Amino acid sequence: MFDTPEDPSEVEESEREHAVRGDLAASTRLLVDAVIRSTVAEAELVAVRAEIDQLVARLQASQMDGSYGVNRSGSGTVRAQGNAVIGLRNAVAPPLVITQEPEGRAWAEFHLGAAYEGPPGLVHGGVSALILDQLAGEAAAAGGSPGMTGTLTVRYRRGTPLGDLRGECWIEKVDGVKTTVKGHLQDAEGVTVEAEGIFILPRWARVDGERPERFE
Amino acid sequence: MFDTPEDPSEVEESEREHAVRGDLAASTRLLVDAVIRSTVAEAELVAVRAEIDQLVARLQASQMDGSYGVNRSGSGTVRAQGNAVIGLRNAVAPPLVITQEPEGRAWAEFHLGAAYEGPPGLVHGGVSALILDQLAGEAAAAGGSPGMTGTLTVRYRRGTPLGDLRGECWIEKVDGVKTTVKGHLQDAEGVTVEAEGIFILPRWARVDGERPERFE
Repeated sequence: MFDTPEDPSEVEESEREHAVRGDLAASTRLLVDAVIRSTVAEAELVAVRAEIDQLVARLQASQMDGSYGVNRSGSGTVRAQGNAVIGLRNAVAPPLVITQEPEGRAWAEFHLGAAYEGPPGLVHGGVSALILDQLAGEAAAAGGSPGMTGTLTVRYRRGTPLGDLRGECWIEKVDGVKTTVKGHLQDAEGVTVEAEGIFILPRWARVDGERPERFE
Repeated sequence: MFDTPEDPSEVEESEREHAVRGDLAASTRLLVDAVIRSTVAEAELVAVRAEIDQLVARLQASQMDGSYGVNRSGSGTVRAQGNAVIGLRNAVAPPLVITQEPEGRAWAEFHLGAAYEGPPGLVHGGVSALILDQLAGEAAAAGGSPGMTGTLTVRYRRGTPLGDLRGECWIEKVDGVKTTVKGHLQDAEGVTVEAEGIFILPRWARVDGERPERFE
């Protein structure tokens, strides 16, 4: 079988839909932030809530069952638009735009605002773990050694301030189906959190030496 | 100095405001879910986005600088309404309602929907870490041994399905300023993810043997 050549009109529509979906989620992220930080009068909060409920009803007029999962575009690109860290559609995701490098490295520069707080003014320790888990998985996949996370260990060297941050992970060692990845988050002053992840290629995916693109 | 007796009218207002804030964030969570899952026409997505932008502007008419931090009610209760896991105001948070038990245990039953997805149909591995970090910190604090997370290790035994889940952490050992906490997440079939956290009481908090209530 041969791959069907891409229909340019379909690709164009997909890109436009991508932009519309991205814009909708971006506005929703601003709403999440404003809901936390707003100090307007209580009556206005009640009024805004009623409007949100109406928007929810309009969006729910037609919706998929369950979660987004992973869809494939015509060109075979995996799209995890619902993903909690990188999902274009997901307002819980910052979202991270991750650059993967073929030697087995993944990095991202991103901004974390009020919605990611743990201790006052600091990134929630678990949010650091969440982001490092995603970066570690993408580093493993970038280097041709994807897998499910077996173990993730996160070491907190100091508090990570909310604001502009960078995260980076890289393959440290590949041993058969087991890949060890290391990485860290940093602010302008240096490393704040370190991570080590062990990724295991699942048994069901060990077919003919082929490896799926990524799992997470 | 004596504590000022609580003014009943102030407490009532605070409880009402609490409900209004909680309802606003709850509706925003539904919006986050609907934005991911909606399959309405593109023009409707664009129209809904324009309405969201107007609501953001209304909420931003007056807002606090930066993140929520931690506020104290008149009665001295710590309120982390912006917290990424438990924050009443925070639509990124599921939110968890955590029960703390004085022997050093913390647990919660909760539901994770489409916004917390990693692999298709499964909870993002990093979201499991995020929730276990919060539960572990609260277990340490519940047992009178609060601290900042030093290390968090998360072991993934199998995929955690999106849906109804339970998480639980407990103090395993206290050694001076260092507290070891263990815990897990589970679905109806049993444990899916295990965690071990080391919490360290920061130097600045080691005053006269007193311990602050909690840090996270």
